[in-house]
Amino acid sequence: MSDDRSDGPPRRDVVQNAELALLLEVAGTPKPGNVDRHRDHADLHFDHFLAGAVGATPGLRLAAGDGPLGEAFERAVGGMSRQRGGNSQFGALLALCPLVRAASRDALTREGVRAAVAETTVEDTCSFYRAFDHVGVAVDDPPEGMSDLDVRQGSGAIPAVRERDLTLADLMAESAPGDGIAAEWTDGYPRTLRAAERIEADDGPVSERGARAFLHLLAERIDQFVATTSDAASAREATDRAQAVLDDEEDAEALAEEFVERGINPGTTADLTAAALFVALERGVEV
Amino acid sequence: MSDDRSDGPPRRDVVQNAELALLLEVAGTPKPGNVDRHRDHADLHFDHFLAGAVGATPGLRLAAGDGPLGEAFERAVGGMSRQRGGNSQFGALLALCPLVRAASRDALTREGVRAAVAETTVEDTCSFYRAFDHVGVAVDDPPEGMSDLDVRQGSGAIPAVRERDLTLADLMAESAPGDGIAAEWTDGYPRTLRAAERIEADDGPVSERGARAFLHLLAERIDQFVATTSDAASAREATDRAQAVLDDEEDAEALAEEFVERGINPGTTADLTAAALFVALERGVEV
Repeated sequence: MSDDRSDGPPRRDVVQNAELALLLEVAGTPKPGNVDRHRDHADLHFDHFLAGAVGATPGLRLAAGDGPLGEAFERAVGGMSRQRGGNSQFGALLALCPLVRAASRDALTREGVRAAVAETTVEDTCSFYRAFDHVGVAVDDPPEGMSDLDVRQGSGAIPAVRERDLTLADLMAESAPGDGIAAEWTDGYPRTLRAAERIEADDGPVSERGARAFLHLLAERIDQFVATTSDAASAREATDRAQAVLDDEEDAEALAEEFVERGINPGTTADLTAAALFVALERGVEV
Repeated sequence: MSDDRSDGPPRRDVVQNAELALLLEVAGTPKPGNVDRHRDHADLHFDHFLAGAVGATPGLRLAAGDGPLGEAFERAVGGMSRQRGGNSQFGALLALCPLVRAASRDALTREGVRAAVAETTVEDTCSFYRAFDHVGVAVDDPPEGMSDLDVRQGSGAIPAVRERDLTLADLMAESAPGDGIAAEWTDGYPRTLRAAERIEADDGPVSERGARAFLHLLAERIDQFVATTSDAASAREATDRAQAVLDDEEDAEALAEEFVERGINPGTTADLTAAALFVALERGVEV
């Protein structure tokens, strides 16, 4: 028996909190347009998210260690992909990895996460590209002058990555303007940390706090995943109508039904919600 | 990279399948009277089951190893109990431990599980009693002449356990007549293995297959947990009405609403459903 048994059973560790954050994220309802406790998509079922979270844990355990963060991410995505729904949590895992690394060093702060990001290397970028071999991910065309870095090539882009000597921090900085997760990587997770504070200050079941945080995140910024998978007008609409829910001008349940039906899926916002739930759990929010 | 990467990412291991089985069980709906994807109890929320499953994994990992099975169970229960809902999955973990041990030996058969049970010692029984210190569990009075072994004493019963030189297999055999999980331990898991076959032969999302298996399990035998927490008449009624659902004479959703409202909670049947889902996952059912 280790010492931490003296006050009862051991608490969840960093990896368990990351996994639980993924589970609480998908359970939270209503999250308009997303799979949640009450809604599935045509080809992506709640069960796929459960299997995705469980499958990702060995990779998340690497993220909590000292090895390359890119390999941890690639391993997490590989494990996540062992279910028939396809991409359930690619973006959530990308958002989580630097947070898990920082938390494993007791440095889950803006500075701690910035440090984890700053340490990434060209090899981490190669692993990041390999992760796209495991699962189809909806992404935009790459920025001007970066077509050799199109992530849709998966590991096929690795020669170009090495040629350009691009660390994962560099790549994220290039992508930050059009990608909500890359922006968090680059800026020290400001939106995630604010959403975590909201979850901490909220009350009720933690998954429901996550759903409320999701609405605030969606209302504050366009979800690029909606712009990519639907169009820019739908992305604007999603943000405006999330604000309308917060202003009590729209019903969240009705909006959730409508968005699922129309295929408007604010996936990046869900990814950041998972990240914020992780931070909140690490800060002691009790389930 | 280990060899198993050559055909893509590694598959879930035994422990991951056990955890996923717990998650798929609680997600399965409708499971009349239980917490499921669409229903909570007053003090026991879906989130508590998510945290319970995640928290149980270090104990389940011990169950997949070579150490004492009772300690693995106690550790799983201790980790499960690290949430505010109380007892979410005590019985499911008890049902899973011998199955996980057998699966870790590639012997997930009636004989393999019997062997895992037969190896238990008096020390395993002591650990079993310690597990009751972590969380309140609704149980009946002990059988005649066994009041010194009342599990409600938790570790307080350990001197009597040692005095009687009672292995965990012995204790389960004594309890089998009135306890559906102890009966599985004692008889080589016949109901669990049949339910797993049903899940394998079924189709659709695996959590929904679990919900259908639940109805069959409830229809085939009185749920002792209902008899303990409600009364014998309610337990009979639960079984009869599960059969009525199978006969298309009752609506499962309406029954689920009614049972939750009346506090009729077929918990043992849910525990066996989790066990059956684990067996089905181990046998290759894909999520």
